[in-house]
Amino acid sequence: MHARPGGPRRTVPSPNHFTDVRSYMTHPWQDPALPADVRAADLLARMTPRERIAQLYSVWPGSDETPGGDMAPLQHALSEDIDLAELLPDGLGQLTRPFGTAPVDPAEGAARLASLQERIRSANRFRLPALAHEECLTGFTAWRATVFPTPLAWGAAFDPALVREMASAIGASMRSVGVHQGLAPVLDVVRDPRWGRTEESIGEDPYLVATIGTAYVQGLESAGVVATLKHFAGYSASRAGRNHAPASIGPRELADVILPPFEMAVREGGARSVMAAYNDLDGLPAHAHHRLLTELLREEWQFTGTVVADYFGVSFLESTHAIADSPAAAATLALAAGVDVELPAVRCYGAGQLDEELVDRAALRVLTQKCELGLLDPDWSSPATDTAAVDLDPPHMRALARQLAEESVTLLANGGVLPLAPGTGRIAVLGPLADDAAALLGCYTFPRHVLLDHPDVPMGVEVPTLLEALRAELPDTEFTEDPVAADVCVVAVGDRSGLFGRGTSGEGCDAADLELPDGQGEVVEKALASGTPVVLVVLSGRPYALGRWADRCAAVVQAFFAGQAGGSAVAGVLSGRVNPSGRLPVSVPRDPGGQPGTYLAPPLGRRGEASNLDPTPLFAFGHGLSYTSWDWQPPTVDDRSFPTDGVTTLRLTVRNTGERAGTEVVQLYLHDPVGKVARPVIRLIGYARVPLEAGTSAEVHFTVPADLAAYTGPDGDRIVEPGALELRLAVSGADEGVRWTVPVTLTGPERVVGPGRRMRCEVRVK
Amino acid sequence: MHARPGGPRRTVPSPNHFTDVRSYMTHPWQDPALPADVRAADLLARMTPRERIAQLYSVWPGSDETPGGDMAPLQHALSEDIDLAELLPDGLGQLTRPFGTAPVDPAEGAARLASLQERIRSANRFRLPALAHEECLTGFTAWRATVFPTPLAWGAAFDPALVREMASAIGASMRSVGVHQGLAPVLDVVRDPRWGRTEESIGEDPYLVATIGTAYVQGLESAGVVATLKHFAGYSASRAGRNHAPASIGPRELADVILPPFEMAVREGGARSVMAAYNDLDGLPAHAHHRLLTELLREEWQFTGTVVADYFGVSFLESTHAIADSPAAAATLALAAGVDVELPAVRCYGAGQLDEELVDRAALRVLTQKCELGLLDPDWSSPATDTAAVDLDPPHMRALARQLAEESVTLLANGGVLPLAPGTGRIAVLGPLADDAAALLGCYTFPRHVLLDHPDVPMGVEVPTLLEALRAELPDTEFTEDPVAADVCVVAVGDRSGLFGRGTSGEGCDAADLELPDGQGEVVEKALASGTPVVLVVLSGRPYALGRWADRCAAVVQAFFAGQAGGSAVAGVLSGRVNPSGRLPVSVPRDPGGQPGTYLAPPLGRRGEASNLDPTPLFAFGHGLSYTSWDWQPPTVDDRSFPTDGVTTLRLTVRNTGERAGTEVVQLYLHDPVGKVARPVIRLIGYARVPLEAGTSAEVHFTVPADLAAYTGPDGDRIVEPGALELRLAVSGADEGVRWTVPVTLTGPERVVGPGRRMRCEVRVK
Repeated sequence: MHARPGGPRRTVPSPNHFTDVRSYMTHPWQDPALPADVRAADLLARMTPRERIAQLYSVWPGSDETPGGDMAPLQHALSEDIDLAELLPDGLGQLTRPFGTAPVDPAEGAARLASLQERIRSANRFRLPALAHEECLTGFTAWRATVFPTPLAWGAAFDPALVREMASAIGASMRSVGVHQGLAPVLDVVRDPRWGRTEESIGEDPYLVATIGTAYVQGLESAGVVATLKHFAGYSASRAGRNHAPASIGPRELADVILPPFEMAVREGGARSVMAAYNDLDGLPAHAHHRLLTELLREEWQFTGTVVADYFGVSFLESTHAIADSPAAAATLALAAGVDVELPAVRCYGAGQLDEELVDRAALRVLTQKCELGLLDPDWSSPATDTAAVDLDPPHMRALARQLAEESVTLLANGGVLPLAPGTGRIAVLGPLADDAAALLGCYTFPRHVLLDHPDVPMGVEVPTLLEALRAELPDTEFTEDPVAADVCVVAVGDRSGLFGRGTSGEGCDAADLELPDGQGEVVEKALASGTPVVLVVLSGRPYALGRWADRCAAVVQAFFAGQAGGSAVAGVLSGRVNPSGRLPVSVPRDPGGQPGTYLAPPLGRRGEASNLDPTPLFAFGHGLSYTSWDWQPPTVDDRSFPTDGVTTLRLTVRNTGERAGTEVVQLYLHDPVGKVARPVIRLIGYARVPLEAGTSAEVHFTVPADLAAYTGPDGDRIVEPGALELRLAVSGADEGVRWTVPVTLTGPERVVGPGRRMRCEVRVK
Repeated sequence: MHARPGGPRRTVPSPNHFTDVRSYMTHPWQDPALPADVRAADLLARMTPRERIAQLYSVWPGSDETPGGDMAPLQHALSEDIDLAELLPDGLGQLTRPFGTAPVDPAEGAARLASLQERIRSANRFRLPALAHEECLTGFTAWRATVFPTPLAWGAAFDPALVREMASAIGASMRSVGVHQGLAPVLDVVRDPRWGRTEESIGEDPYLVATIGTAYVQGLESAGVVATLKHFAGYSASRAGRNHAPASIGPRELADVILPPFEMAVREGGARSVMAAYNDLDGLPAHAHHRLLTELLREEWQFTGTVVADYFGVSFLESTHAIADSPAAAATLALAAGVDVELPAVRCYGAGQLDEELVDRAALRVLTQKCELGLLDPDWSSPATDTAAVDLDPPHMRALARQLAEESVTLLANGGVLPLAPGTGRIAVLGPLADDAAALLGCYTFPRHVLLDHPDVPMGVEVPTLLEALRAELPDTEFTEDPVAADVCVVAVGDRSGLFGRGTSGEGCDAADLELPDGQGEVVEKALASGTPVVLVVLSGRPYALGRWADRCAAVVQAFFAGQAGGSAVAGVLSGRVNPSGRLPVSVPRDPGGQPGTYLAPPLGRRGEASNLDPTPLFAFGHGLSYTSWDWQPPTVDDRSFPTDGVTTLRLTVRNTGERAGTEVVQLYLHDPVGKVARPVIRLIGYARVPLEAGTSAEVHFTVPADLAAYTGPDGDRIVEPGALELRLAVSGADEGVRWTVPVTLTGPERVVGPGRRMRCEVRVK
């Protein structure tokens, strides 16, 4: 298809841009003293309709040259030949993936981008550059950039401060090479771990996703890079965990489970972009969902940034959702609902026939953001750094990647075999993933996202496999593949990520059930049959059913694609160099069937009272062991009764009673015995990482606002009711994980909680 | 717990009922010339508050004596000791399960019921009997009563007229022994076949469920027995198919998929009772759902009968949904939402503290229904027939059971081995279900529902097993268990139904996936390994994944618990005595994972474009083979364009081109290329069973109202839009099942379809 943006070309000549260039310094849109929206409005007023529309789409240089592994078959059908020379005189809204389309040396990529930007600027009469966006979920998706752990591993680390620091570093490196917007984080709350994008999600609890995801947003935005919250909304609820399938969901579940992370990331994180989701919600595709994209996001949450389409998501309104009969009709629906920018290309918004008022609304948002980013400044230029100056994997980022990986590794079971005894003579290492770096890398890492199409290109960063890391960790130990004779047997099973069927986890790589893929259970059985103690290491993008083996293994370790330092992190946990402190961000089930489900379940359906099936997980949300031991002293509470608009403070002293330093993760759950609708028995409302030297203790304060007891009532309002509550201090979401229960009472009238509600506990550790 | 209905006993003496008895003939409530509601209102006005409440609950005689297999563990906790002598002076609304609680000779049961009713009448001052209800899903759930096929088999038969006739006969036998209300049919549309109650459902298409279910209602009501539509609503959408789990569902899916069968059964079937569902919908339990039970059911659909609780469903508002903190609070919620009668007992509505206005609203409905049933008449008495006169399994009912069983057996694949060659010498019969009557009986049949607790009591009706039926069908054939040597090998696999974990299908017997249960796949493998042609016979309550074997079997036959004549029906299909005419009411999947899902899917999610998983079934909804062949001549259509409030008529000539008589099932699907929300690619809007002698033909007319193209749009209205549609005449819901596509166009304005919308095609076969 040949794109014809803005409809048939006019026969009248374009405005002479030389005239404008000579005069623009006199125009308000170039005056740095004026507010961004005023400058944007002035610029908009000077634009032709075609120029305005041109700000609402993107081009994807080089996309026609890639073998296409990163696009679904569906998307290939929507690719297009773009005639840049024809397009550019009208200007250009965005540039798609200048670093993540094919491997390019970072400095050369920056130079190419700068050159392309200069071409773009030269072609339009306002000398406006495009806004360049790139993926950055597990780090900047560029060759030779640090590969961080996948978001599910962030969830396991329960450490928002570290995630904030990581995102800040990622943002700085993106900004240094000319990228303005990052397509992260994913704030989808896991509803069905069979979904291939579970690895891209932070966990199954909205509070955990909200707090960790908001930290990421704060970090990225602190570097001046636009964070993009995705996927808005409901994508993780796709039927049967099948990518793009419809989401059967009602407004209450949406409000109480799916939306809170987005709200926190907008209100507290300052995210400047939101990406619409591919799925429909109860029949209405998110890309055409005015209630979500406009009424909720902008009017209620006061979001002022841009809403961008997911790649080809506007086209899908026509081709798969079947709610539009042409590209232009799809564009109209999306634009009216509140999608400001079509990504990754031109197909629909460039098809013309758009309502001018809607175009102006979107273009004003785009131009305001460009102005904030400095793209309207006359002296703007894209950084074109030389090779020596560009290092996307510098020591401080490697250190962050290592720290986050180490914090994320979760010890699920340990009969005492771990940490490995000093001087362990011989270790058998089995399993197809033990010596494969792919087992450590999420599907949005550059090596898995792009390099699968470039098998001859080296990975660009050092990613020691688990076996390599073990050899480095334990230089005096002999490693073998034969479990008989060995002192201990490490079995590494799990996933290789990929896109659209090219992996066992990742976008378009969904699972029919939670059985370990590719018959890897047989390797575990083989190891167990040897009689040698087995340490089962699961390197994966989703939880798998471990009920068949867990009781027979000497220890079980879970690592969710922990990035370039993932192998070392796991090896460090096995050796004892790292005292594990990860906690499960998703439940690990006993059996492979019975999805969907998470720990957020009301009494019926949480246990098997009315069914032969018992969904109680093998390892609960929040579970994770340590090599030291902990004592949780009885907590105190400032006010056992507090008003429905008040707060109370819990104080808990935690002591490391073991022999070595470690980190405890104190979790605070809310149980509300009676409400007006059926709700989960418990949900997380606070948590604290507490690092402690052996023999020391700390006091943890949770200041709990009554707002956290709010839920969406029968009338759709978010309400806080007076009455009894239980605050449960726990080591996991399992009933047996509760250490202390603090009964409290909310007093005063029932309250409807407004848009300014408090969304989190204040936590202090001292 | 000792029940204390109506709160603390009053200290004032009860009204002297002798006074009332002397005078009541002069009261309007006893005047048969007055309308039922007028009589009921007059009676209500004479009642004390306690007497009014007493009309709203039930007692369950004998429930404390049963071992309890028919109650979930949850329900046991809610059982209660009733002091009838204390209760009865206030009257009694209902009697629970006088025939289905324990095996009792039908005539003796009738006599006991009559005696109990006389005790009830004597104890209250108005001499009012209780309304007696019983289960009747697969026939009257009484000992020695005909056991009909399960509803999933009704769906397979695509024969509403026969289902109507069956239900009429069932109703007559219930009425003959004093039962007034039957707790059937189940109108839940299958959404996840892992749900144990899939066998109780008619199928995965709302139109099929609506038309067959409405026929059942018409039949039962024609006998004067109150039909009870259940479960209202959304129960089949319980998460992961786990019984009682929450239903994640939005209003649009509810309106377009779940509710239509209920609407048709109310408006066209004349159902006089509706049972609330156990589940919550997006957090709001159905028993507390005012929008469903009152606004939709009564105000929009004009329903005037009674809404009854599912057993213990009112208590569950307290004990499991946690939206009430006491039995009385649960009662208030349920009563306010529109639950008129608590079943099966007294616990909540008898706890007192109820709003008098709400009590009166419910009691008026109950008394009006009792009046309609004749229970207010002074000369009323329960039939107490003698043994000779009671036959609950008479020849005409046996014949109906046999006909429906034969029509329901579905031939899924046939390489030519079926029908078995005349004079087949030796047949191997394998599989744990081949010689087990349990494989033919749904979980609401008396033998499975009650007799599992009475293992020494004979079944009460003749239920030949498949093997017994084959021996009878093929008297000259030798039967063996050894597949080697045999001419053909019949392998029978599938389910034994039961309650709450006592079977592999049935209430509380959910499946984690659709793998054949109990490792029965091994039997199939063993048979296949013999090299003898294998006829796979699936006798089950749900579809199972057959992809691993189907291609290697010589033939595949599916029978959903086909009742007492099920073994004979399958044997008849194998021998060729019966030409199979069943069609699948649910898709049969290829692989065991990937639930939930049905054929009602939009383009994304229907095929695997954006996912590695392809949900395309192995055998599609509507699929079924015959021993004869068919020619479908090109159809004609009266009006290719017709208005959005109009109709058109399709005419199709079908010819039996084979050698023997048979029945074709012509299916009409609607495909709407573009709409305002994402909708299933196709859905059934009409069907016709066409029985034809060899060489003959028939013309099938479908008069299609535009109303059938209606769907729930973005604003919640049910709309019909102008534009192109496709009417697809097909042998199944698979793409390759389409025989003819008839494009038509709706003209005129978009229409909001009101409560009086036409819900079905008019079908004529001539």
